[in-house]
Amino acid sequence: MCSSLRVAICGAGPSGLSQLHAFESARQAGNKIPEIVCCEKQNDLGGQWNYTWRTGLDESGEPVHSSMYHNLWTNLLKECSELVDYTFDKHFDQSITSFPSRSVLCDYIRGYAEQNNIRQYIHFNTIIRWISYSEEKKRFCVLNQDLQKDVTQCEEFDYVIIATGHFSTPSTPYIDGIETFLGRLLHSHDFRFAHDFRDKTVLLIGNGFSGEDIALQLFKYGSKSILISYRTKPKDYQWPKQIKEVPLVIKIDKEIIYFKDNSSEKVDAIIYCTGYSYYFPFLDDNLRLKTKNCVYPLDLYKTIFWLNQPRLLYLGMQRSTFGFNIGNIQAWYARDVILGKIFLPSTKQQMEFDIQQWRIKAKTIKNYLDDIYFRRDYIRDLLNITTYPRFNLDQMAEILIDSVKSRIENILTYRDKTYTSVLTNTMAKQHHTLWINEMDDTLQNFLNK
Amino acid sequence: MCSSLRVAICGAGPSGLSQLHAFESARQAGNKIPEIVCCEKQNDLGGQWNYTWRTGLDESGEPVHSSMYHNLWTNLLKECSELVDYTFDKHFDQSITSFPSRSVLCDYIRGYAEQNNIRQYIHFNTIIRWISYSEEKKRFCVLNQDLQKDVTQCEEFDYVIIATGHFSTPSTPYIDGIETFLGRLLHSHDFRFAHDFRDKTVLLIGNGFSGEDIALQLFKYGSKSILISYRTKPKDYQWPKQIKEVPLVIKIDKEIIYFKDNSSEKVDAIIYCTGYSYYFPFLDDNLRLKTKNCVYPLDLYKTIFWLNQPRLLYLGMQRSTFGFNIGNIQAWYARDVILGKIFLPSTKQQMEFDIQQWRIKAKTIKNYLDDIYFRRDYIRDLLNITTYPRFNLDQMAEILIDSVKSRIENILTYRDKTYTSVLTNTMAKQHHTLWINEMDDTLQNFLNK
Repeated sequence: MCSSLRVAICGAGPSGLSQLHAFESARQAGNKIPEIVCCEKQNDLGGQWNYTWRTGLDESGEPVHSSMYHNLWTNLLKECSELVDYTFDKHFDQSITSFPSRSVLCDYIRGYAEQNNIRQYIHFNTIIRWISYSEEKKRFCVLNQDLQKDVTQCEEFDYVIIATGHFSTPSTPYIDGIETFLGRLLHSHDFRFAHDFRDKTVLLIGNGFSGEDIALQLFKYGSKSILISYRTKPKDYQWPKQIKEVPLVIKIDKEIIYFKDNSSEKVDAIIYCTGYSYYFPFLDDNLRLKTKNCVYPLDLYKTIFWLNQPRLLYLGMQRSTFGFNIGNIQAWYARDVILGKIFLPSTKQQMEFDIQQWRIKAKTIKNYLDDIYFRRDYIRDLLNITTYPRFNLDQMAEILIDSVKSRIENILTYRDKTYTSVLTNTMAKQHHTLWINEMDDTLQNFLNK
Repeated sequence: MCSSLRVAICGAGPSGLSQLHAFESARQAGNKIPEIVCCEKQNDLGGQWNYTWRTGLDESGEPVHSSMYHNLWTNLLKECSELVDYTFDKHFDQSITSFPSRSVLCDYIRGYAEQNNIRQYIHFNTIIRWISYSEEKKRFCVLNQDLQKDVTQCEEFDYVIIATGHFSTPSTPYIDGIETFLGRLLHSHDFRFAHDFRDKTVLLIGNGFSGEDIALQLFKYGSKSILISYRTKPKDYQWPKQIKEVPLVIKIDKEIIYFKDNSSEKVDAIIYCTGYSYYFPFLDDNLRLKTKNCVYPLDLYKTIFWLNQPRLLYLGMQRSTFGFNIGNIQAWYARDVILGKIFLPSTKQQMEFDIQQWRIKAKTIKNYLDDIYFRRDYIRDLLNITTYPRFNLDQMAEILIDSVKSRIENILTYRDKTYTSVLTNTMAKQHHTLWINEMDDTLQNFLNK
C-alpha cells in the first residue's frame, strides 16, 4: 500500500470515529496508514450524540445535525451497541444499566474516540461543500470550508468515506390544510424538551421509533393527551390511557384534525415523526447515494462500497439495530480494503450480484425477528471476510430479540430490564430509579458512584 | 454588446425579479439582451414574500428561505415600495391602504413579475451549489442543482448577479444557560403564528424591527406579558401595558431569566429577534461578500459591483428603507452596465474612493432622519448615473419620515394612517378596520370590492 494515499472521512459521528479508530489502531500496530483527513461541520465529535439546544440552523448558518432531544434514553439495549475493542466496563469501570440516557452513551462514544487520541485527525467546524471525481486525475476533489476561518480549500483524495448519517434532514410531507394550523408545529428533528407540552393535547404524525418514543416523553412529562397517527397499522402497545393511536390525518383546519375514519380532534401541537431523508447535497450526481431507509441500499457493495466507484465508501447507511457495532465492523472492513489487505471482487457484476442476493433476502423480512436475523447475518457476512475480533453474535441477536419482546409486552417498563454483556459477561446494574420516574438524565446520576 | 453573453441571476425575490424585469423591458424595447438564467431554490417567485408554513429545512432539505410570519403587515408604507414602472393603481385598479398585509404586497410583487412574463427565465427548485471564477476562461462557473430532478450541472456565465437576500440565515447568539431553558425557544425566522403564545409570558431578545413587530403580534393575539430585551437602549414607545422593555439577558436558568439590572422574570417562551447573517455558502472565497447589515457595505461599488471582479454583482445588500425601489433602481443600473450603456470607472481605485466617500458619510448618521436622507441620497446618486424614470424622491423621503414619526408617536396606530402616492397622486384608502382589530389578513379583505 502506497503511504502517500490520502483518505477523506466526512463526519465525526460514531461511524466516522470508528473509521478513524480503525486506521489509528492499525498505525499503532505498526502498519503504514494513508494520510487521513476527517471533516466535521460541528464543533465537537459525536455526530447525532453531540446534542444541541439549537434547532433549524446552527451558529454557522448550516442545518443543525443532531436530532436528539434532551431527555432521550436509548431504545436499544447498550449490550448491542457495545464494541469489542472498547467495552462498557472498560469505559465506565463499573456496571451500568442496559438502557441509559443520551449523555451516558455520548460519554461512551467520546471515550472510544479519546482513548486513541483520534481528535488529531479531525478538522472541526469544517463543512464539505462539494465532492466530485476527476477521471483524469483518478482522484476525488473535496471542496471544504473552515466555517470559523471562513476559508475554502479544494483537496485531492484517493478515497472518500461518507459518514454523515441519515437522521438529520427531516422529511415533512405536506398535509392538506397544514398551513392553517395555529398551534405549535415542528418535526421531531427540532424536538428538544417535553416540558412545554405539559397539559397539552399533542398529535404525533407517524408511529415509528420517533413517534413511539416522543409519545413516551410527552406522557412522562405530563401532556394531557397524546395522539399517534399511524399510516398503515397501529402498534397496539399497552399504552397508558393518555396515549391513543389514531388513523391517518386527512385534513387540518386551524386547530381541528380530521382523520381517515371521519373522526376529528382538537389539538394544541403537532409533531411530525415522519423520519428523515438521505441527503448528500455535497456529492456530485454520479457519487450520490439515492435510497430510502432500508436494510440493504442499492448500489452499495456490502452496503459500503459505491458500485460505480468503489473508492467512494459509505458507512452506516442501512437501517440499523446493532447500534455502534455495524459502523465499527464496516470501518474495520473498509480500512483493510484501503490498506490492501482485503480485495473487493474484481468485477462490478460480481458486486452487483452480491447486492441482489441480499436484497432478495431482504424482501422475505416479515417481522422483527426476520429483521434482526437479517442484520445478524449481514454482520456475520462482514465478520467472515474480515479479521474483526470474533464475538458471540448469536447471543447478541438473542438478547436484542428479548428486549424487543419486552418492549412489545410493556412499552413503559422495557427500559428497566437489564442484560448481560455478550463481551464481558457483566450483568448490567439495575438503575436505582424506574425509567418512568427518573427525571435526572445526567451522566452523574447514571454512574452514581 | 455581444448577444452571446450569459448572465446568471441567483434568486427570484424582489431584487431578482427587478433584474429580470429590467432585462425583459429592454428586450421588449428592441434591445439585444444577453442570455439570462435565473435560479430560484423555492418552488415559486417572491423570495421573502413567498410565505411558507415550514420552518428549519424545506421540503428539499434546504434551509427555509422566508422569515415571514403569517399575519405580518408591512411596517413600511407601501408608497415607498411603489415602483415607477408598476404602480399600485396599475396592479390593483383601486386605492388600497398604506400599510397592507403580507399577502397584498406579495400579490403586488408577483403581478410585477407576471406582467412581463418573466417566469420564462426562472428555473424553480434550482439551488446554486457553488460559484467560482475561472481566470483562464474569464467566466464564472455556476454549479446548480435541480432539486426535483436531482440533477446537477455546471454552467459558465459572463456575469453573476447575487439576489439571494440577507434575511434568511438567523443569527442566534449563545446566552449563558440557554441550553437549560425548558420552554418554547425559537428565532423570529421560525415564527409563523402568534396564536400559540396566547396567555403566555414571552421574552423577545432584541428590540430591532423583528422584536418590535413580533411584540405587537403577540399583544394583538393575546399574550399575557411580552418582555423585549434591549442591548443598548429601550425604544421607549408608548407600549401597551402588556409590553415592557427590559435590559440585556445575562443568564437563563430553566424558566427563569436574569437581566443586567439584577431583575429576573419567569417566562414561557423565548423568541430570538437578533437578526440575520449575510450568508453566501455557495460563493468562492474571493467572491464572497462579508458584511454586517449596514447602509453601505464594503467592497461593493455603488453597493452593487464587487470591487475585485465587477462582473459579479450584488443587489439589495444594504439595510433598506425604500422597499422594492432600491433593488429596482439597482437592477436598472446593473442592466445598463451589462448592456454596455453605462461604464464603470476604469480603475479599482476610483471605485474604492467612491465607496470610501459614502462610508465616511454613513458614519455621520445619528438618527432616523439622517438615515432616511442617506438612503435618499444614495438613490439620487443612482438616478443621476442612470436613465431610470424620474420621480419625486424628496417627497417620498418626506412621507417616509412622517410615517416613522407616526410610529414613534403611537406604535399601535401608525399602520392606520394613509398617504398619497408620489407616483400617481392617489390617496390611499383607509382600511375598513383598524390594524389592532383586524384579524383577517387576506388579500380579499384588503381589496374588499
